[in-house]
Amino acid sequence: MRFSSKVEKCGLSPMRKFHPFAVAAREKGRSIYHLNIGQPDIETPKAYFDAVRSFDQSVLEYAPSGGVPELVAAVQKYYAALDMHYTAEEVLITTGGSEALQIALNCMIDDGDEIVIPEPFYPNYSTMVYTCGGTIRPVATCPEEGYHFATREKMERAINEKTRAILVTNPGNPTGTVLTAEEMQMLAQLAVEHDLFLIADEAYREFVYAGEVLQSFGSIEEAREHVIVIDTVSKRFSACGARVGCLLSHNKEFLDHAMKYCQCRLAVATLDQVAAAALYSVDESYFAAVREEYKRRRDTVVEGLKKIPGVICECPKGAFYLMAALPVDDADKFQQWLLEEFEDKGETVMFAPGEPFYGTPGKGKNEIRIAYVLQQEKLARAMELLALGIEAYNKR
Amino acid sequence: MRFSSKVEKCGLSPMRKFHPFAVAAREKGRSIYHLNIGQPDIETPKAYFDAVRSFDQSVLEYAPSGGVPELVAAVQKYYAALDMHYTAEEVLITTGGSEALQIALNCMIDDGDEIVIPEPFYPNYSTMVYTCGGTIRPVATCPEEGYHFATREKMERAINEKTRAILVTNPGNPTGTVLTAEEMQMLAQLAVEHDLFLIADEAYREFVYAGEVLQSFGSIEEAREHVIVIDTVSKRFSACGARVGCLLSHNKEFLDHAMKYCQCRLAVATLDQVAAAALYSVDESYFAAVREEYKRRRDTVVEGLKKIPGVICECPKGAFYLMAALPVDDADKFQQWLLEEFEDKGETVMFAPGEPFYGTPGKGKNEIRIAYVLQQEKLARAMELLALGIEAYNKR
Repeated sequence: MRFSSKVEKCGLSPMRKFHPFAVAAREKGRSIYHLNIGQPDIETPKAYFDAVRSFDQSVLEYAPSGGVPELVAAVQKYYAALDMHYTAEEVLITTGGSEALQIALNCMIDDGDEIVIPEPFYPNYSTMVYTCGGTIRPVATCPEEGYHFATREKMERAINEKTRAILVTNPGNPTGTVLTAEEMQMLAQLAVEHDLFLIADEAYREFVYAGEVLQSFGSIEEAREHVIVIDTVSKRFSACGARVGCLLSHNKEFLDHAMKYCQCRLAVATLDQVAAAALYSVDESYFAAVREEYKRRRDTVVEGLKKIPGVICECPKGAFYLMAALPVDDADKFQQWLLEEFEDKGETVMFAPGEPFYGTPGKGKNEIRIAYVLQQEKLARAMELLALGIEAYNKR
Repeated sequence: MRFSSKVEKCGLSPMRKFHPFAVAAREKGRSIYHLNIGQPDIETPKAYFDAVRSFDQSVLEYAPSGGVPELVAAVQKYYAALDMHYTAEEVLITTGGSEALQIALNCMIDDGDEIVIPEPFYPNYSTMVYTCGGTIRPVATCPEEGYHFATREKMERAINEKTRAILVTNPGNPTGTVLTAEEMQMLAQLAVEHDLFLIADEAYREFVYAGEVLQSFGSIEEAREHVIVIDTVSKRFSACGARVGCLLSHNKEFLDHAMKYCQCRLAVATLDQVAAAALYSVDESYFAAVREEYKRRRDTVVEGLKKIPGVICECPKGAFYLMAALPVDDADKFQQWLLEEFEDKGETVMFAPGEPFYGTPGKGKNEIRIAYVLQQEKLARAMELLALGIEAYNKR
């Protein structure tokens, strides 16, 4: 039997690679501070579980392919409050933001087509683009410049006749960078000029820490036919396991194509949609409290990093991730060593090595991504362990 | 902006086409007997909702990409009872049987590759294959032969150097045909000889009405590296809205590739998986009762069809569908007429016109698929309406 050349180009999750080492470390009695995955520890709003418990239909039927009406309406209302007005037909509920991305990319990519993505980027974008037969054209950044990518020159250099879309994560994963309104305007303008889609992955929209108003590419009127917004309840409501996201677009032709995919996989899980609709009833104080909590965590991590000699890290403005360059030869080897050789009072730390976040081979070798999804005192200790680890690693 | 040529090849669901006519008919006060969709009316076992209600984690976290361990174990146990032994790594939980199919096809198709599928087939197979860049090579059947496809000659004629897999739905949707053990053996043998995958969509495994033991291609030892079993809780437990299915295979390389997709979309909904695991605790009496109910329904429909002059229909042995050829010029036009022009005591009937179930253009024009998912007396009345409709349509 032969396998698809597209799937052969993809790799297993780079995050998984260290799993056996982590298991072995735990078996030796070590406890590990996990900064390697984006699974928040914040409680899911009770509204979700209440809705689930009060579901009273006796037959668990297929939901409509585009989403259950109450969830579509909840999403519309959420966007209307941001002065973005989508009709019910312009909202397609998906199985997480992941499926929204897969559907969008499948609608536009033919073999050999390119998607422009600033690097470092979310590693699953690679599998999503490759399995459609496309390739990623990365836009280079560096830790010294705080991973800043949004200049017209940098972006335009990456666009060619094979480009189908620009894919931007804002706020950024893994970098935590937040675009300014002017940068967003420039990117949207670029999409219009070059007749490209602009896929805006805004999973972390609420996680901005400078008191700014919430932003979305979907609000840029001049690019309304070009922008596809990817959204999800996963991070916003700490409901990653719900697998409920959505696609938003004003482009009728795109929506028609996307609906073909939606119909082909029939529907998103019914109960999760009903419960996700209830999540949208959570009031602004919930977001404010969560935002404050993450902000404190970010500050703790950045403070810890700044104390470590040789670490390069700009304070990120959003999401719950940051990237940093470490004074080590190879973050991958360093991570393995932290799990196999290092401990301080029986404890060690895990992060995500930076290389898999890059599309350009060889880049990110001494960088790491930190997800600050633990409580402050744990984060402080994790930074201490990182400092001790770097020192011991470089002395070994 | 340009769209993918693959998605442009796909169509919207043919079932949807009559939706506006149905709405209009209801607005005129007509009631409609729906035999057009495979949404069972059987109650979902309480175990599902009980499990959902007693879920007590405060953070709804991502499940593991391959599935929650308790569901994987439940699936393993179910198969072990059929004397099929899968390790936990050989079971990948998916978002319904639909995602299982999409993953399997994505793993093997490159542009221009072919999948051999007996026609008529489940129309979503087209979108699934097209979006991977492949095409379907249909194996022709006819109503006069009870849609029988499983002869070595017929199958072998469809296989060429571009063939990657044979995809078989058993019991069949839309035909309700059930393969004999010998036919299954022959198909498996063919896959081995031609070095192909055999994708066995066994969503309707339990729905067989001749008292036979449950069958699966997964039990054919000689083809263990070739067979990929597609399974789902949707029909088995009348839990279509759960969107929980799985992929089963003994082929390590295939499983590794499939895991890349599983990781890329992160996970299947957590709560639905926990609840689906509980479904597997339902005892054999549940299946026996459901089977008896569907058998009675099938008999009612077949009896009704046999009374209509000119209808060609063999009594199907499984699933809850059947195909029949009607004495009308065009089932599509006839359906529209039934919704727009016909009524008897304020009632009319809907089925799925046959053409979209065929890969060969022009075939199936006078055929229909009936899903017998209503109670017996309603089915009897629906057959009466069909008979009256055919008579009036041909006299108009």
